[in-house]
Amino acid sequence: MSSAVRVTVEGPIAEVRLDGPEKHNVLDLAGWNALAAAFAALSARTDIRCVTVRGTGGRAFSAGSDISAFSGQRVTPDDVRGYSAAISGAMHAIRDCPHPTVALIEGICVGGGLEIAVCCDIRACEASSQFGAPINRLGLTMSYDELDPIVRLVGAGPALDLLLTGDLIPSAAARRMGLVSRVAPDGEVVSRGRDLAGRIAAGAPLVNRWHKKFIRRLADPAPLTEVEREESHAAFETDDYREGRTAFMEKRPPTFTGE
Amino acid sequence: MSSAVRVTVEGPIAEVRLDGPEKHNVLDLAGWNALAAAFAALSARTDIRCVTVRGTGGRAFSAGSDISAFSGQRVTPDDVRGYSAAISGAMHAIRDCPHPTVALIEGICVGGGLEIAVCCDIRACEASSQFGAPINRLGLTMSYDELDPIVRLVGAGPALDLLLTGDLIPSAAARRMGLVSRVAPDGEVVSRGRDLAGRIAAGAPLVNRWHKKFIRRLADPAPLTEVEREESHAAFETDDYREGRTAFMEKRPPTFTGE
Amino acid sequence: MSSAVRVTVEGPIAEVRLDGPEKHNVLDLAGWNALAAAFAALSARTDIRCVTVRGTGGRAFSAGSDISAFSGQRVTPDDVRGYSAAISGAMHAIRDCPHPTVALIEGICVGGGLEIAVCCDIRACEASSQFGAPINRLGLTMSYDELDPIVRLVGAGPALDLLLTGDLIPSAAARRMGLVSRVAPDGEVVSRGRDLAGRIAAGAPLVNRWHKKFIRRLADPAPLTEVEREESHAAFETDDYREGRTAFMEKRPPTFTGE
Repeated sequence: MSSAVRVTVEGPIAEVRLDGPEKHNVLDLAGWNALAAAFAALSARTDIRCVTVRGTGGRAFSAGSDISAFSGQRVTPDDVRGYSAAISGAMHAIRDCPHPTVALIEGICVGGGLEIAVCCDIRACEASSQFGAPINRLGLTMSYDELDPIVRLVGAGPALDLLLTGDLIPSAAARRMGLVSRVAPDGEVVSRGRDLAGRIAAGAPLVNRWHKKFIRRLADPAPLTEVEREESHAAFETDDYREGRTAFMEKRPPTFTGE
Repeated sequence: MSSAVRVTVEGPIAEVRLDGPEKHNVLDLAGWNALAAAFAALSARTDIRCVTVRGTGGRAFSAGSDISAFSGQRVTPDDVRGYSAAISGAMHAIRDCPHPTVALIEGICVGGGLEIAVCCDIRACEASSQFGAPINRLGLTMSYDELDPIVRLVGAGPALDLLLTGDLIPSAAARRMGLVSRVAPDGEVVSRGRDLAGRIAAGAPLVNRWHKKFIRRLADPAPLTEVEREESHAAFETDDYREGRTAFMEKRPPTFTGE
Repeated sequence: MSSAVRVTVEGPIAEVRLDGPEKHNVLDLAGWNALAAAFAALSARTDIRCVTVRGTGGRAFSAGSDISAFSGQRVTPDDVRGYSAAISGAMHAIRDCPHPTVALIEGICVGGGLEIAVCCDIRACEASSQFGAPINRLGLTMSYDELDPIVRLVGAGPALDLLLTGDLIPSAAARRMGLVSRVAPDGEVVSRGRDLAGRIAAGAPLVNRWHKKFIRRLADPAPLTEVEREESHAAFETDDYREGRTAFMEKRPPTFTGE
């Protein structure tokens, strides 16, 4: 696995770190593949209850793809297709992760960095964070796989504003357009994110996975099947539902086992 | 009808009140059924021009389902299905109401209370109102029918944030995520809501119903039929259109008859 | 062409001006047709890189349709259909424009004026701008073609709030609901809009058109074809991509030719 992506696990919480601080945590072809592999490995584990994603160094979440590597990796038609497939693979690996995912954003979050963030379930940033996708300056487009999660999160209007103007926007504007739901004072997003991940991990893990799955499913206009509707009653047959009700009546915090 | 839901009608404006202030206006199985019945009755009346929904007591809109009643009402698979059907029935009865609906939110609006509010057309709250759905602490999930109107209103991202974190959020964050469109100072949402209902009721009632119907229809990706397109010209053949144009030219307020 | 709509082109930037300041730049039947024709003509040109739309006079973007002309133009069933077709034609001509479009809003933006603005890609307004669609006071409805872009931009909830209450809302509320993405101090939106159009026109023009096209396509739930997916690699074969990469490496601004 590329050194560009590091994974650590502490109890039920995993941290994926984009790790190239001298270049604002950009990813080249190997980096995108490493990010996909990291998420695929975490998705296969049942002991994980929350995955956080952040950049190393405090100045950037990620500036996206490593443009300086394009001349060797993203010029011939075959290379272009392969590079797009690597980005798509990473996007899908993040979105398909069954565990709750949280992007903790320090500094800039641009281009492919923005794409990674929008594939997470929750995004928190710092007051001085900046967001954008100034790729019309580079003469290249995002693919459908890259645009889709952005448009789903903020809508077509704000997505077009970002892409057509190429402007970098501050945290307040990012929050207004729904790009992030939480803004922490500078220097505090990682510690607050740890608390947030803790609160998520304290919820019933199967419930969190079902809610992710159900909300994702609602984006598909195909009518729900009877089997799908029935699955929304499955939580009521878990040990965790019994524990949840008992803890509520006894006015104590529940202890969930994920069963 | 259960005592948990009270309906009063004053002129063209109906008020549905969730009435159990000692328990934050929670609803048990009978309460959900009563809410559905209340809306079905109001929907059948043609003299109504606006329906407001609020909680009794000023401290809560509603805390949702009565968890203390779950042990007798929501444990066996059959009971679980029946309880979900009762919630779905109430959601549908509110959403299917042809008249404009306005939720006036004082205090907390949580879980099933949030679900009731998002099924209304407009939501106004007070500065100290709080919103959330901390049901991953209880070990249970919302069904598709419960999730769908939340996701449609605020989007998948903010909906996941609420459900995965279980956090209670204040009125400013609720307004930012589109959960409410109006925030009044504490103690003023009911009187402002009365004015708002008055303004709605002063509009042409058929126009309001058509706009509700057309906007709802646009959520369905199926292509519009010629008959449906033609219906969007029906307003131009009403007495109220003639009155509206005449009043505009005479610079006086119109008096609509709904014909 | 009606005198109600004026078009000027300066370099790669076109300006469409709604020009009837004595009546808040309202449009009658001929005006709507002129607006459609203006956009059709601009869409056919390949030298344009950005189109701005604004009203003459500084007090209004547009108050929409000229209600005082309705008695002669929008009463008989045939006239009603023809008038709706003219509005739809203008909406479609704006939305189908391949170039980036920016609405620069001074003063009021109401009814049909709001409809014009939401068909643009980006909307900027001034602090004192006001927005609304108080047509339930006139006894008429918007058609599906008029409602659709509003609902797509702000969502069904805020759209219903506007239409059911008929309230005029200030710029801050408009920004909160996503109706505008930028608010300038009074008197500055036109000059800031010129800068904005300049930044848009400085981006690779084919990239901007592809991003418009791709994001529009994502609103259609039909699965993407292989040909469509392949088109998202076309930018990588342009001269502008080569220029973009070279300029980036040489740390200089790119000069794009649109080829």
